[in-house]
Amino acid sequence: MEVCKVIGNVISTNKTEELKGVSLLLVRAVDMNTMKLSSRTLVAVDTVGAGEMETVLVVTGSSARLTLISEKKPVDAAIIGIIDSIEIGGKSIFNKYEEKDISD
Amino acid sequence: MEVCKVIGNVISTNKTEELKGVSLLLVRAVDMNTMKLSSRTLVAVDTVGAGEMETVLVVTGSSARLTLISEKKPVDAAIIGIIDSIEIGGKSIFNKYEEKDISD
Amino acid sequence: MEVCKVIGNVISTNKTEELKGVSLLLVRAVDMNTMKLSSRTLVAVDTVGAGEMETVLVVTGSSARLTLISEKKPVDAAIIGIIDSIEIGGKSIFNKYEEKDISD
Amino acid sequence: MEVCKVIGNVISTNKTEELKGVSLLLVRAVDMNTMKLSSRTLVAVDTVGAGEMETVLVVTGSSARLTLISEKKPVDAAIIGIIDSIEIGGKSIFNKYEEKDISD
Amino acid sequence: MEVCKVIGNVISTNKTEELKGVSLLLVRAVDMNTMKLSSRTLVAVDTVGAGEMETVLVVTGSSARLTLISEKKPVDAAIIGIIDSIEIGGKSIFNKYEEKDISD
Repeated sequence: MEVCKVIGNVISTNKTEELKGVSLLLVRAVDMNTMKLSSRTLVAVDTVGAGEMETVLVVTGSSARLTLISEKKPVDAAIIGIIDSIEIGGKSIFNKYEEKDISD
Repeated sequence: MEVCKVIGNVISTNKTEELKGVSLLLVRAVDMNTMKLSSRTLVAVDTVGAGEMETVLVVTGSSARLTLISEKKPVDAAIIGIIDSIEIGGKSIFNKYEEKDISD
Repeated sequence: MEVCKVIGNVISTNKTEELKGVSLLLVRAVDMNTMKLSSRTLVAVDTVGAGEMETVLVVTGSSARLTLISEKKPVDAAIIGIIDSIEIGGKSIFNKYEEKDISD
Repeated sequence: MEVCKVIGNVISTNKTEELKGVSLLLVRAVDMNTMKLSSRTLVAVDTVGAGEMETVLVVTGSSARLTLISEKKPVDAAIIGIIDSIEIGGKSIFNKYEEKDISD
Repeated sequence: MEVCKVIGNVISTNKTEELKGVSLLLVRAVDMNTMKLSSRTLVAVDTVGAGEMETVLVVTGSSARLTLISEKKPVDAAIIGIIDSIEIGGKSIFNKYEEKDISD
């Protein structure tokens, strides 16, 4: 899985039947060395009610279909968690409730 | 999924039986930082009747087989929606009905 | 899928039982911006009787197993069509029967 | 599979039901030419009780779901072994019980 | 599939139950333009009794589980053949029984 940040959304009305009712968010991968956004951008199905600018966990490939919301759908990326905190080497490098945030 | 633009098509008459009757379009990924076309080009099965130059949603991998049109077929990329609009940070960066278009 | 060109073949006698009788061709991806060969080279199962130097359609991942010839085999790339022609922006950029060919 | 090193962890309380009770570790791929950490960082499910700074074996894609702990879960990376030793060309280049360790 | 060369092995005693009895080899992809080793290194399950320095065929992704030895195991790469010879453009560029070998 990858640590990403929700940066926007995509609207499509003319889409395959299986995608009806699904929320498509635009997420950008976080570079875990710098904690800044990378250029890697994906369209992911939201399965947890994520909001704009939230730091989230994204699963890709066939495993994106292994949630109740995405099962049997033609999706290759899904937001499966909202991240509270990340620690590297015993030190907090991200905490949802603090102001040190991931920037562009 | 990835935001792509339809740039052309591929014709193959000598192909595996499972691909008969399928429309193969050439799509190029849109760089979501610049909104220009990247160099990444794929051949994708069309499941929504997409036209040349349309901005579309493309799914890759095994999930490309999860539509009625592509199921059980040897395809690893499918166009699953025509994109109406894209917002980043609350601002519209693409709208199908406006002239600000994605360029090469 | 990817547009590739057949550049050679691979012979293996000591191989897993499931691969017996399968033809393994060496294919190189075509850079669709320049129509020249890229450096990306794969070993793919031939399912359509492709010949050396032919321009072909290659599927990768689990979908490479979705043909009669490759099903249930440990293969991650398959040639599924011989390409007749490619159009970009309404202009022919490749035609099997013309001499403007994809070069190295 | 890839040789990685555990560098931290990720906490998410608001996550999809299928992920409840799962331990999410942050792993970084080891560059096998230099035996230093690369920049490639993944969030992986722990299936073997790996500890911080341990050198581990990580499987990605659908195969990450092929353990008792991860089966049917929306995960695309899993720690499936703690590495004791690595040999290249008959020479030991990593041994868990020696001090020559993989550095950042 | 990819042409690789066996460069070493990995030992792990504390591993997931499904991996017991499996031989884990370190393989490095061969750059098919230069026939030298690239930097891409994988840990692959051996299904054919490959030896150190042998040139082998490696399958990745879910298809790595499609052999008797690897089925239902959490593995994403498998050695499925020992390569005898490779031809490009009708010319032999690798032959197991000759001394022109792939070097580092």
